[in-house]
Amino acid sequence: MAAGAAGATQDEVRRHNVSTLLRYVHVHGPTSRAELTAAMQLNRSTIGALTADLTSAGLVREELPARGAGAGAGRPSLVVVPRSERVYVLAFDIGVDYLIAARVGLGGAILDRRELYRPRGDYALDDVVAHLGRFTGEMLSRAGADTVCVGIGAAIAGVVRESDGLVRFAPNLGWVDAPLGQTLQTVLAHYGIHAPVAVGNDADLGALAEHVRGAAAGATDAVYLTGEVGVGAGIIVGGEPLRGAGGYGGELGHMVVNPAGRLCRCGARGCWETEIGEKAILDAAGHPDGPRSTVPAVVTAAAGGDPRAAAAIRHVGEWLGIGVGNLVNIFNPEVVVFGGLLRDILPAVEQQLRTTLRTSGLVAPREQVRLVSPGLGPDSTLVGAAERAFGPLLSDPPGALARQPAGQREDRVEGRMISAGRRPLGD
Amino acid sequence: MAAGAAGATQDEVRRHNVSTLLRYVHVHGPTSRAELTAAMQLNRSTIGALTADLTSAGLVREELPARGAGAGAGRPSLVVVPRSERVYVLAFDIGVDYLIAARVGLGGAILDRRELYRPRGDYALDDVVAHLGRFTGEMLSRAGADTVCVGIGAAIAGVVRESDGLVRFAPNLGWVDAPLGQTLQTVLAHYGIHAPVAVGNDADLGALAEHVRGAAAGATDAVYLTGEVGVGAGIIVGGEPLRGAGGYGGELGHMVVNPAGRLCRCGARGCWETEIGEKAILDAAGHPDGPRSTVPAVVTAAAGGDPRAAAAIRHVGEWLGIGVGNLVNIFNPEVVVFGGLLRDILPAVEQQLRTTLRTSGLVAPREQVRLVSPGLGPDSTLVGAAERAFGPLLSDPPGALARQPAGQREDRVEGRMISAGRRPLGD
Repeated sequence: MAAGAAGATQDEVRRHNVSTLLRYVHVHGPTSRAELTAAMQLNRSTIGALTADLTSAGLVREELPARGAGAGAGRPSLVVVPRSERVYVLAFDIGVDYLIAARVGLGGAILDRRELYRPRGDYALDDVVAHLGRFTGEMLSRAGADTVCVGIGAAIAGVVRESDGLVRFAPNLGWVDAPLGQTLQTVLAHYGIHAPVAVGNDADLGALAEHVRGAAAGATDAVYLTGEVGVGAGIIVGGEPLRGAGGYGGELGHMVVNPAGRLCRCGARGCWETEIGEKAILDAAGHPDGPRSTVPAVVTAAAGGDPRAAAAIRHVGEWLGIGVGNLVNIFNPEVVVFGGLLRDILPAVEQQLRTTLRTSGLVAPREQVRLVSPGLGPDSTLVGAAERAFGPLLSDPPGALARQPAGQREDRVEGRMISAGRRPLGD
Repeated sequence: MAAGAAGATQDEVRRHNVSTLLRYVHVHGPTSRAELTAAMQLNRSTIGALTADLTSAGLVREELPARGAGAGAGRPSLVVVPRSERVYVLAFDIGVDYLIAARVGLGGAILDRRELYRPRGDYALDDVVAHLGRFTGEMLSRAGADTVCVGIGAAIAGVVRESDGLVRFAPNLGWVDAPLGQTLQTVLAHYGIHAPVAVGNDADLGALAEHVRGAAAGATDAVYLTGEVGVGAGIIVGGEPLRGAGGYGGELGHMVVNPAGRLCRCGARGCWETEIGEKAILDAAGHPDGPRSTVPAVVTAAAGGDPRAAAAIRHVGEWLGIGVGNLVNIFNPEVVVFGGLLRDILPAVEQQLRTTLRTSGLVAPREQVRLVSPGLGPDSTLVGAAERAFGPLLSDPPGALARQPAGQREDRVEGRMISAGRRPLGD
């Protein structure tokens, strides 16, 4: 059957509407029924019924508005509030030299977090997941008694098979076909967590977070660039993430921009990564490889008058301008967000980047693009992992609750009841 | 209001379903009710009601299946047939040295066509539209008495403001801010045609046609490349056309791939177009500019042993391989379609292209991509203009019929009744 050929039924309409309402309050925070009625273009009684469904499922609660808000004639409109303190996900950001774990509530609040920084290395999958499990245990011991984990999300710099969270290839960690999703599932089960696990590429998840609640919020077309060891990207086209036929899309770091340039680790010559990646910056600045050699140090040295560092900054600015010109011509984005080490370097290279872009970008799309730092600062990837983890609940709240296993609702973890409810998420 | 925040109503469901059914038979041709029930995942009585709506609107008719088809126990399932002979659009393809006009029936059949080839030149808007009007008059005089034109579509190599069909910039024709949409509307009104006019970029429309009923049918992710004077592209991402924030997306011809290369007419250096465009090919082959110097002639000369022509073919194959590698890494498409002069050259350069792509494309997405000629041959752009013209009717059949002006239904054109119906499109 061709995609999009299916008709719609009444059940699907109800599911669509309850999903839309929950997503709205998740993204926008507490919202009055009157605002929801206007935003969703449905009548008041339908909004009331949808809210009642979500309230009885324990996902939102209704409050009287704060004094002064919505003052006027007539009854005040109740405010629908996501139950952040009760409904949460676990989010993990796995880097080559750090691990971050967070408990993120419905609505997007980071309720608790743990971080570990260590030297770069080929850390084994089991080592990484053991640390994340320990962090999870610590955070759960501080969570309230009737809290419910509805999903788990993990971000990693690599190629991921999203169906089961298999990491096909993460060169910086030395992982090939590492079953991250399955291992997380198994280890977290020991802590009484049985929610679905989603693993995603770090750049894709950074783009998701910046699009939902960051610098690209409201944009239909956006590019989120991130540099760590390599250069990756998450791309939003027409409001949806660009995935490609097999989920391999968005490899902007391997866009050839200089066929006369250096050999890339992918085998091609002159990939964008070979001109703006970490190694290119450190090499150009004359910094030897090593733990004390960092991109922020190059930025500082350039600002302090070091001529090699300044030349490196100009080099990166120019090649950023050429590559961003290509993105502007190809995607006509409203915004390009510079994450990871590009976030560190953006202020220093911005002028050169804009100068080059005046030649490389066509006038019409160039005039529309904003070049910005991430709205979520260094947390784009972590927040993106949380957003991905909330995905199943937000897309189909009744379905997600029905799939919640019984164990999730009754298991005790370190002596604490994760969720006391008998019915799925009901209170 | 955030995009996508609106809820769905019953009316919208009905409109969605009637649109889905009409689009299905438009794309797939005559389809039995049983197949529609399966494809749309709706019950038989709903399919019956939707079909009845479309039948009474004069858009489809129902037939008994051909003997042998669907044979078996029980009543045979009626076949729903798009009324191609009655419901049609006008499609125009405006080139720098040709004009093509066609009458295209619902279901995609080209019912009639007219073509004009002439030397390249800066033809004025009025001249072009006058020819298209004359072609239209000729075709209408051969159309049946109760035929109805539901849309007009025009393709042009240039930047188009789709809201009103203003051609912002068509360098090859020398047009700047040319009101093509409005002029077509005015001139065609003299022939009794009052349907909505849609103007689109030729590459975007070629991509649309190849995606709906050509070499990219069924693909969620596809790139349609076309070379005439410049190099353009239409890109399908996740089943939808890539437009960009302002409709300027997809300018692959101005992707910088060789910053050490030639100056492009856009002002940048080393755009892809400067390596694979018509001028690059003719220059590399040592062919002077002129009417007798063509890309097919270079292909023929190379096959005949001309060393400069052969070198030009290798050059283009290599740069095609570098650029297609970028597209593969960025979009992970299932298919790249080579249209326009790239269609002429593909067989000659394919081996070189594939060799280069083995280095420039990452393994995983490269293994998924097919490199093909257009399924619609030289007609991708023309058929795309027709598909765009059918858009309003297919998206919202009741709405499109309600907007059909009274004049459309009663005006006589050269003594013929365009449509005899009193109610919109009813018969």
